[in-house]
Amino acid sequence: PRGPAMRCSPLNLCEYETSKLVRIKSVKLGSLKWALNGVILLVICIMLLWNKEYQEYDLVVSSVTTKVKGVAQTNTADFGEVVWDVVDYSPNEEKNSFFVATNFIVTKKQKQGKCPEVPHYGTLCRTDNDCKKGLWDIRSHGVQTGVCVKFDVTTKTCEVSAWCPIENTKKPPRPALLTSAENFTVLIKNNIRFPAFNFIRRNILPEVDGNYLKKCIYNQRTDPYCPIFRLGDVVQGARENFADIAVEGGVIGIQINWDCDLNRFFNSCLPKYSFRRLDEKESNRTLYPGLNFRFARYYTENGVESRTLYKAFGIRFDVMVFGKTTVFIDWLIGTSCYSKESQQVYSERKYESVQDRQEVKHTHTHNASLHLHPGLLLV
Amino acid sequence: PRGPAMRCSPLNLCEYETSKLVRIKSVKLGSLKWALNGVILLVICIMLLWNKEYQEYDLVVSSVTTKVKGVAQTNTADFGEVVWDVVDYSPNEEKNSFFVATNFIVTKKQKQGKCPEVPHYGTLCRTDNDCKKGLWDIRSHGVQTGVCVKFDVTTKTCEVSAWCPIENTKKPPRPALLTSAENFTVLIKNNIRFPAFNFIRRNILPEVDGNYLKKCIYNQRTDPYCPIFRLGDVVQGARENFADIAVEGGVIGIQINWDCDLNRFFNSCLPKYSFRRLDEKESNRTLYPGLNFRFARYYTENGVESRTLYKAFGIRFDVMVFGKTTVFIDWLIGTSCYSKESQQVYSERKYESVQDRQEVKHTHTHNASLHLHPGLLLV
Amino acid sequence: PRGPAMRCSPLNLCEYETSKLVRIKSVKLGSLKWALNGVILLVICIMLLWNKEYQEYDLVVSSVTTKVKGVAQTNTADFGEVVWDVVDYSPNEEKNSFFVATNFIVTKKQKQGKCPEVPHYGTLCRTDNDCKKGLWDIRSHGVQTGVCVKFDVTTKTCEVSAWCPIENTKKPPRPALLTSAENFTVLIKNNIRFPAFNFIRRNILPEVDGNYLKKCIYNQRTDPYCPIFRLGDVVQGARENFADIAVEGGVIGIQINWDCDLNRFFNSCLPKYSFRRLDEKESNRTLYPGLNFRFARYYTENGVESRTLYKAFGIRFDVMVFGKTTVFIDWLIGTSCYSKESQQVYSERKYESVQDRQEVKHTHTHNASLHLHPGLLLV
Repeated sequence: PRGPAMRCSPLNLCEYETSKLVRIKSVKLGSLKWALNGVILLVICIMLLWNKEYQEYDLVVSSVTTKVKGVAQTNTADFGEVVWDVVDYSPNEEKNSFFVATNFIVTKKQKQGKCPEVPHYGTLCRTDNDCKKGLWDIRSHGVQTGVCVKFDVTTKTCEVSAWCPIENTKKPPRPALLTSAENFTVLIKNNIRFPAFNFIRRNILPEVDGNYLKKCIYNQRTDPYCPIFRLGDVVQGARENFADIAVEGGVIGIQINWDCDLNRFFNSCLPKYSFRRLDEKESNRTLYPGLNFRFARYYTENGVESRTLYKAFGIRFDVMVFGKTTVFIDWLIGTSCYSKESQQVYSERKYESVQDRQEVKHTHTHNASLHLHPGLLLV
Repeated sequence: PRGPAMRCSPLNLCEYETSKLVRIKSVKLGSLKWALNGVILLVICIMLLWNKEYQEYDLVVSSVTTKVKGVAQTNTADFGEVVWDVVDYSPNEEKNSFFVATNFIVTKKQKQGKCPEVPHYGTLCRTDNDCKKGLWDIRSHGVQTGVCVKFDVTTKTCEVSAWCPIENTKKPPRPALLTSAENFTVLIKNNIRFPAFNFIRRNILPEVDGNYLKKCIYNQRTDPYCPIFRLGDVVQGARENFADIAVEGGVIGIQINWDCDLNRFFNSCLPKYSFRRLDEKESNRTLYPGLNFRFARYYTENGVESRTLYKAFGIRFDVMVFGKTTVFIDWLIGTSCYSKESQQVYSERKYESVQDRQEVKHTHTHNASLHLHPGLLLV
Repeated sequence: PRGPAMRCSPLNLCEYETSKLVRIKSVKLGSLKWALNGVILLVICIMLLWNKEYQEYDLVVSSVTTKVKGVAQTNTADFGEVVWDVVDYSPNEEKNSFFVATNFIVTKKQKQGKCPEVPHYGTLCRTDNDCKKGLWDIRSHGVQTGVCVKFDVTTKTCEVSAWCPIENTKKPPRPALLTSAENFTVLIKNNIRFPAFNFIRRNILPEVDGNYLKKCIYNQRTDPYCPIFRLGDVVQGARENFADIAVEGGVIGIQINWDCDLNRFFNSCLPKYSFRRLDEKESNRTLYPGLNFRFARYYTENGVESRTLYKAFGIRFDVMVFGKTTVFIDWLIGTSCYSKESQQVYSERKYESVQDRQEVKHTHTHNASLHLHPGLLLV
């Protein structure tokens, strides 16, 4: 009895096993079967789509360059008429973001020296004993000298070695000095590449002509493909009020979404722009609102170094490029469907072959659709 | 014989095929079956978890702003008492990182002119023939004029057109000038968003109150949610010695990990901070240790431009935000389990229907649990 | 009849169900079966590989520091001999990119004041009525004062409050001033970490010795692991002409690809460098070619602030670090293969057990390879 099994094993390749089937005519079970098949296929496709959603953010290799344009004029008591151009209000360039200062606290002619600290808890003093040489804390503007000096007629504070005079104003001016920055424009150049398909594209579309680009301003409806943005529109697109955000500053995200269907023609691969505030809005709820940083311009006059300190409040625009392609999904769903079909083909084949067998068998086995081993016939 | 098969095909929808089963009572095989089922389910779940681990880094859209505070005082032979504030030691802001200079090589009053190159292999000379006009290499500070001049009493080097005098010191001072930067603090504001769920969160938790935020300093145990960090603690958290890293500089990663379970209540979505040195530690093993870069302040005195060159050694803190959500995993495992269950339901159904059939059949087929075609009964 | 089924359920664990098989000897079906198995396995593996390709970009946590070296000398009519060192031509450091200015438009001694706007459409005027106080547009250099003044002998333009004199030249000089930047070098330090495996590596390989690193220059063939790059080589590697790109500027990507097989020994984990231009090349086709930005140096002379405005055209090098590991794929394919094998084992087991059964059965059932319920034997 073992013999035949042994003999059989070398022939494994030219052997085909299929499970014996029973066909039950039943609407309930039939529909249940189809329902479950549908659900499973659905789940697979949803999983694929979800995965793509998640991968969306690392699919694309992108390069961004920005160029801000515009001038603003301020007329303040301290400094008189001043014109600000891009070099003044956008001091530092960055790769995927640009900063536009909209508000300033300027402290001129600071020199290294000794002066009274601005009064707040911990710096107020009556005698030198209230101060400690070398002491400083997070809010200090300098290192205490250990002397208690007059800050103004009423108050005395500890003296500090620092850049004097010390920046005094705490709150930024309202309204912001450069509220007109609303009318500044920025040109955003974005080149993308889908490494998987080595497919390159840029947001200055080849089809648009130069004269248009010279004048156009982005508008979601009328000019959705103009790469020049009015800052006011961007902030508005993020559902913010420019005059408000200009005072304390903030972070606005400019999202460029490349939803490319590489199956279709290339002109179906277009940038979609969207705007959103990235930092906390409610400046009353948060202790450290907005965005500001300090920078200085250094001078020397007859050998003595001095500086003008700028506390710049402003908006940082982060350009975030997302990209996804649908080719991969189609491909996968394609295969999954294909395999589904192939299985049907497969099972159909199976039946054919069974039919073949049955032609040489008696009907009752046919009804029971028994698949019998050809070897049986030899018996 | 073909006829019935033909007639059958239109009824395909209301037809249900199941493979004929044989039930074998065997502890060995039974346990093997369950073991394998367990293994397969395990593998699926592990795969899902792994995938999430990998996707962790692109799940979250984040914005980071930082603000360094603190002052330091240095007292050197060349420059006397100098106070350094954030504008001095943190010259350039960046989006997701900030630099704090901890050590300096300062070269004052550089002017465009001609001066002897610092002596090293290739710049030493005896006569003008040893120098070549226009020559420069990677280590040059200027372009050779072709003249050989005295560098000091003993050595002669090729003259170069350069910013003179040339920065001479090679090694940074030990200990670092601004070792007290250890006590500087940085406020890190991080707003995140999980685009898939449009779920927003920030690291300044709404539940903590203002007075706490004014004073708190991050501490893994006592204050794990304070967004203000003492630089010394950060470096220590990365298992580094501040005094050491301050000399040559380095790169420290501040990782903010948002491990959010969106299934639970939002207060289960909290930032976890961790610190790690990102660059090579052993400065003896590496030829180009630490981190330093040069910047200059430019002046004009009576029409002649001069500059003060700063070679700043310091620590760059890269803020890296990771985020993952468990909702997706749960969802998937849920479905996979669901489908597993559904299969059981499914198979149970199958048995029911079979049982139904068997009531009208003779026991031996029942024992063999043969699933027979209803058509058979008509025979 | 129901009874036994009931009795059976508690014993479910020690029960094993397998579908009744029919073995059909048929080369056609056999080969079809194997072909389909092959296809399915292939599809699975391809899917895995694709997924990895897509995940490639978020697998690695990396830190990059760069250091540019080199000096250039320019000799122009306006400024005479000037030496440019890294501080001059690389004004702002960034985390994963560095900028090298190759061309300049310099406007010296700008002061806040009033001067005629440069003539272009919209600024030309005959009388003051053609100008409007407070008016400015994107191309303005200042805010109109409402007065029409002489720009030169032939043309009159609207006067503006601005930094005067206004930068006039439109086109950058050809050839670029700092074409010799081609010979500058950059040291790129890149430390990576695969968080999933906590595996750390840096591009300055431990095996290479210091003397080599002091002299070496990257070359794809001869020195593929030297971390020092000649800018000219990088641009050439991106299939660009340095002299061309130097005029208008551009963006070049330096890709560091870590293709690590963590299954093998670590020395199989090496960086691969590749270069590619990221922005639009054809400057004639695009309206806003190349890359440039403005920065200024501010001075005071006897109390009056002035600045030198630099419009810097140059190349931004974006260092992009990619990393992938094959361990995960192997692991997965491993499991999939394992499970495949396990299934074979499984099915083999099945047959064994069947064989066992058959020894006590008559041969025709054996030929038909009927799997019968042990219970049957008791009947």
